[in-house]
Amino acid sequence: MVIIMKPHAPKEEILVLKGKLENQGFQVSVTDGENYCVIGLIGDTSKVEVGKIQANEYVEKVLKVQQSYKLANRLFHPEDTVVDINGASIGGSSDLAVIAGPCSVESEEQIVEIAKSVKKSGAKFLRGGAFKPRTSPYSFQGLKTRGLDLLKTAREETGLPIVTEIMSPNMIDKFVEDVDIIQVGARNMQNFDLLKELGKTRKPILLKRGLSATIEELLMSAEYIMSEGNENVILCERGIRTFENYTRNTLDLSAIPAIKKLSHLPVIVDPSHAAGLWWMVEPLAKAAVAVGADGLIIEVHNDPENALCDGQQSITPKRFENLMCDINKLVGAGVRPVYSSANV
Amino acid sequence: MVIIMKPHAPKEEILVLKGKLENQGFQVSVTDGENYCVIGLIGDTSKVEVGKIQANEYVEKVLKVQQSYKLANRLFHPEDTVVDINGASIGGSSDLAVIAGPCSVESEEQIVEIAKSVKKSGAKFLRGGAFKPRTSPYSFQGLKTRGLDLLKTAREETGLPIVTEIMSPNMIDKFVEDVDIIQVGARNMQNFDLLKELGKTRKPILLKRGLSATIEELLMSAEYIMSEGNENVILCERGIRTFENYTRNTLDLSAIPAIKKLSHLPVIVDPSHAAGLWWMVEPLAKAAVAVGADGLIIEVHNDPENALCDGQQSITPKRFENLMCDINKLVGAGVRPVYSSANV
Amino acid sequence: MVIIMKPHAPKEEILVLKGKLENQGFQVSVTDGENYCVIGLIGDTSKVEVGKIQANEYVEKVLKVQQSYKLANRLFHPEDTVVDINGASIGGSSDLAVIAGPCSVESEEQIVEIAKSVKKSGAKFLRGGAFKPRTSPYSFQGLKTRGLDLLKTAREETGLPIVTEIMSPNMIDKFVEDVDIIQVGARNMQNFDLLKELGKTRKPILLKRGLSATIEELLMSAEYIMSEGNENVILCERGIRTFENYTRNTLDLSAIPAIKKLSHLPVIVDPSHAAGLWWMVEPLAKAAVAVGADGLIIEVHNDPENALCDGQQSITPKRFENLMCDINKLVGAGVRPVYSSANV
Amino acid sequence: MVIIMKPHAPKEEILVLKGKLENQGFQVSVTDGENYCVIGLIGDTSKVEVGKIQANEYVEKVLKVQQSYKLANRLFHPEDTVVDINGASIGGSSDLAVIAGPCSVESEEQIVEIAKSVKKSGAKFLRGGAFKPRTSPYSFQGLKTRGLDLLKTAREETGLPIVTEIMSPNMIDKFVEDVDIIQVGARNMQNFDLLKELGKTRKPILLKRGLSATIEELLMSAEYIMSEGNENVILCERGIRTFENYTRNTLDLSAIPAIKKLSHLPVIVDPSHAAGLWWMVEPLAKAAVAVGADGLIIEVHNDPENALCDGQQSITPKRFENLMCDINKLVGAGVRPVYSSANV
Repeated sequence: MVIIMKPHAPKEEILVLKGKLENQGFQVSVTDGENYCVIGLIGDTSKVEVGKIQANEYVEKVLKVQQSYKLANRLFHPEDTVVDINGASIGGSSDLAVIAGPCSVESEEQIVEIAKSVKKSGAKFLRGGAFKPRTSPYSFQGLKTRGLDLLKTAREETGLPIVTEIMSPNMIDKFVEDVDIIQVGARNMQNFDLLKELGKTRKPILLKRGLSATIEELLMSAEYIMSEGNENVILCERGIRTFENYTRNTLDLSAIPAIKKLSHLPVIVDPSHAAGLWWMVEPLAKAAVAVGADGLIIEVHNDPENALCDGQQSITPKRFENLMCDINKLVGAGVRPVYSSANV
Repeated sequence: MVIIMKPHAPKEEILVLKGKLENQGFQVSVTDGENYCVIGLIGDTSKVEVGKIQANEYVEKVLKVQQSYKLANRLFHPEDTVVDINGASIGGSSDLAVIAGPCSVESEEQIVEIAKSVKKSGAKFLRGGAFKPRTSPYSFQGLKTRGLDLLKTAREETGLPIVTEIMSPNMIDKFVEDVDIIQVGARNMQNFDLLKELGKTRKPILLKRGLSATIEELLMSAEYIMSEGNENVILCERGIRTFENYTRNTLDLSAIPAIKKLSHLPVIVDPSHAAGLWWMVEPLAKAAVAVGADGLIIEVHNDPENALCDGQQSITPKRFENLMCDINKLVGAGVRPVYSSANV
Repeated sequence: MVIIMKPHAPKEEILVLKGKLENQGFQVSVTDGENYCVIGLIGDTSKVEVGKIQANEYVEKVLKVQQSYKLANRLFHPEDTVVDINGASIGGSSDLAVIAGPCSVESEEQIVEIAKSVKKSGAKFLRGGAFKPRTSPYSFQGLKTRGLDLLKTAREETGLPIVTEIMSPNMIDKFVEDVDIIQVGARNMQNFDLLKELGKTRKPILLKRGLSATIEELLMSAEYIMSEGNENVILCERGIRTFENYTRNTLDLSAIPAIKKLSHLPVIVDPSHAAGLWWMVEPLAKAAVAVGADGLIIEVHNDPENALCDGQQSITPKRFENLMCDINKLVGAGVRPVYSSANV
Repeated sequence: MVIIMKPHAPKEEILVLKGKLENQGFQVSVTDGENYCVIGLIGDTSKVEVGKIQANEYVEKVLKVQQSYKLANRLFHPEDTVVDINGASIGGSSDLAVIAGPCSVESEEQIVEIAKSVKKSGAKFLRGGAFKPRTSPYSFQGLKTRGLDLLKTAREETGLPIVTEIMSPNMIDKFVEDVDIIQVGARNMQNFDLLKELGKTRKPILLKRGLSATIEELLMSAEYIMSEGNENVILCERGIRTFENYTRNTLDLSAIPAIKKLSHLPVIVDPSHAAGLWWMVEPLAKAAVAVGADGLIIEVHNDPENALCDGQQSITPKRFENLMCDINKLVGAGVRPVYSSANV
């Protein structure tokens, strides 16, 4: 950690601060620059409260050298994490993991039919919302526990592990029992109570990036889960909020190489929520593979116009089949980037 | 609602869509423009799922005329909402409501001393965090229920109603009993389960705008609370995330006249979290009063350098006293904007 | 164009506005909705000043149906534009166009060596800055006209057409004579005087998206050039400014399918400026190909550490060779999206 | 400047970099932290090309301690700059400077009438566009040189100094002769050729912040002008581009205290362009005064509905009169912040 003092900070105040930091166990160096005095801290600063130092009226600013996340940090855990889900795996040198299914579970016929179809096209996991976080209280809120039951039926019929979103810590026991991967949605990325409770389970957690979360904040939220003992965290880039409003969000594909460099956790891409437009899903999915994502999560609906949720961004099973065909060619071309501790 | 069809949408597809919408009870008009056919919907479209219509492959885009929030909408509720808190009030033509106190409750001495001090300077409510949402799991997470007890002590000593943040639906009963205004933090603005549960109480709720929430989304979150029956909602602008990083967030003061126009709910401003810099709190607080906010929430700490949280953005009781003196002059000058159903 | 009147707009004011619009030659329909009266305009509204209508105190808001750009609009020009540059072509079903070279021209040896090298790896155009827009007046500003001379030497030696940035209308004659593609940088995307003057030439113009320009604004800037008669416009996505600051900018790959749908103009991607990090150039370049860009513009430098400009985002000729090899495999896999008037 | 080396950077590479930096005249310190080796540079680093250092493959990141602007920096020029315009002044302890007038000059009657009216209400300067940067080539582009002539007429009639925007370096001689303050618009904030040419004059320059420019970039653009010898620079905050689109831009009032701390230059606020909504101009103007701006620039039009440009954000002379009355009360209340070298 590097502390820049104000230009005319009195020498004695600098010494007071130096003493205070040394008392906290840091090795402290003081360097007088041309205009600014700079204090360097050596030691584990990951738990230092930066705000306290910035509250000092003689401090100009504080620059962090070390990241605040440790368990999620590739620096301390160079090897890729591979998350195992009933024999299927995500991360490292695993095959591209494709998760597909409808935004919401609507009926047994719907979810089973879509599950069979996406499995046939090559999906390895089934997604489907049972509890739906909707901007409006008047929108369809999901079939709730009945939705979970229908997902289980679809799993029985197809063998596909199921992925679905949790919205409240009260549902954790039920989800642990019923679900294979528990998803934390973008709007709950910093619902820290929920993260901590999920950290106490050993279930794989699919953690989506918040709409305006930095990459560092996403990794800090993963750290919340991991610090409670659950290391099965899969990250997901799903678009961030920017000034551009032609698309609902702006898919940030640079986040993939960034996360691969900073962390050992797997990271997948959701092209459906990013753009919010079904006709963009295919090119964005291909781009996500080409940039090196560990997997994809794609909304597929057999009748988008009558979908109870997010029909505008769902593709049909037929389009999904074509997309999977293209993705296989892309993977087959051997150009998908490989990130590892050796090259990042 | 206005639906723009794609330039070459077949006539029969337009008629199919028209029929479908009429079956939903809308009066539908179809107008052929120079290049686009436009479908107009008359009726209550606040509950229409826009996504379903956009899923139609012949639809270019959908433009909403009517807002999706009804209970929070000034259109249907022209008079200002005034929230009563044990005799004190916020909103409408009430006096400027100033909430002050430390980021976190740290000890009895600390909270009581600050409470007395801010009361003397003119604050009408005491704030103090007991459960703290922190980006890092390694940061101080608050004194929790002990923090609530200390707040109650401070209330007894000063008579100031207390405001503190809730992080989990599991704590609602406790908060309803102990607290005067329950705060929902920016990171939980779209924690819909929490909002719904709070809607079932009748406690005043201080709802902070999410870091990347639009004004419309903030009002939709208020609608979640109100749709369960609790109309005591106070909104709070606290800075949004932008590309500018000199300040932690960018305080969006335009949101005040915008919200006053769109809604009848009171809205206050948090200059402390917005900038994240103690020396900006004073000018931003004055600007918030001048733009017409119904109140302020300000972090005050007797020893910012040793604060367990957010010391960098806390002002001392002495500075707070000076600020209140300036604010009184500002209010006294008679230039604070008055928004009412008649002039917005 | 659709005009939403305020809820309580007096009937007579609505009729006055209707009359005014009819006098401007529009067919006007007035529909009374549940809460809002809506006025629809039929006719060519691309030149209507929206601001004038919004200045009416009874107008709530104005929604545009039709885009303001006409010459750049695929609606009125369904076939892809293919820009020809001395026999090479960009756009439509042309081969992927790869432009490569250093940020700045530094010396004859440098530019000729790099030109030969990138040509060998498969680049079809040479880039190199002669006039450099730098944030700081104290940074290297380019070799200026001597830089242009050196680019011409490199062109003679390799046959590669040259691409370089113009910063002032005063240099247009010189650029028209010396250069094959004239680049307009992101910071000048709305330097309208420059755009108009370039519109009077017939040179291919490479128009970069501004750091905070919407897709619509980019197309409006293309329209400026085209409205003066020059239809040889190539667009370039190069990253937009967002809150994420791990990368310098956020590459918006969704802009590619969006532009392909809205316009017939070719669009290429600059992965070097987007991330500002050399080790991200390769994955982002592949993603750009997979999403369907018509080409790439990539910074290559033989000695990035001593580059006079942008060394941090330049890749070496060796890395460029490997990248071209991967890109060829990607193109060969046959999965690059094809956008045409038939499928967008 | 602080350079963080990659965790496993070889010792010899660190020494090579150290040597290189010492050869550039810096005093260099190397500190081994827990995980990162940190290199500190002492000396004038304002002209160092950060990119070159970041191009080194063993460098993790570079943190700047010193700002790159020197002439605009309060550190090296503690006293406030006061710009004199024919006897009127802006900055420091001058009276609040109010500039008012129409978006565009439209006719002699219009500009003279508005000039007289705003003068009567207390404006000290007249604004009016002659050359208009418009997003669309089909929108009204201003009366150009005839507009300048009409501004001169209005100046003769009222004595108010005139402020108008320049769009091309070719017009500088004319502007120097005709105009009192030359405005550089937001879209040209990084039109470096224009800035340099304006730096060669001694005219007061009103430099508007770009739509997505950071505060630091705004100061770097001021530095461009100042580095050529013209120190008469007035900065202007006019709203930045964010995800919120209820308002056209988001007025960033935190920028005022930030700029006052970082620089000695005067800074004014444009509430008209920020929100793009006439009914927000009044509260935002008051907030700008309360936050400590040195002045305001406000669009006033006698007939907004027929304005050739920006009618939606213009207020009438009557509203302006009321606003000036309120502003005088606000200033009279004695709460306007005073920033000086002593307290920032």
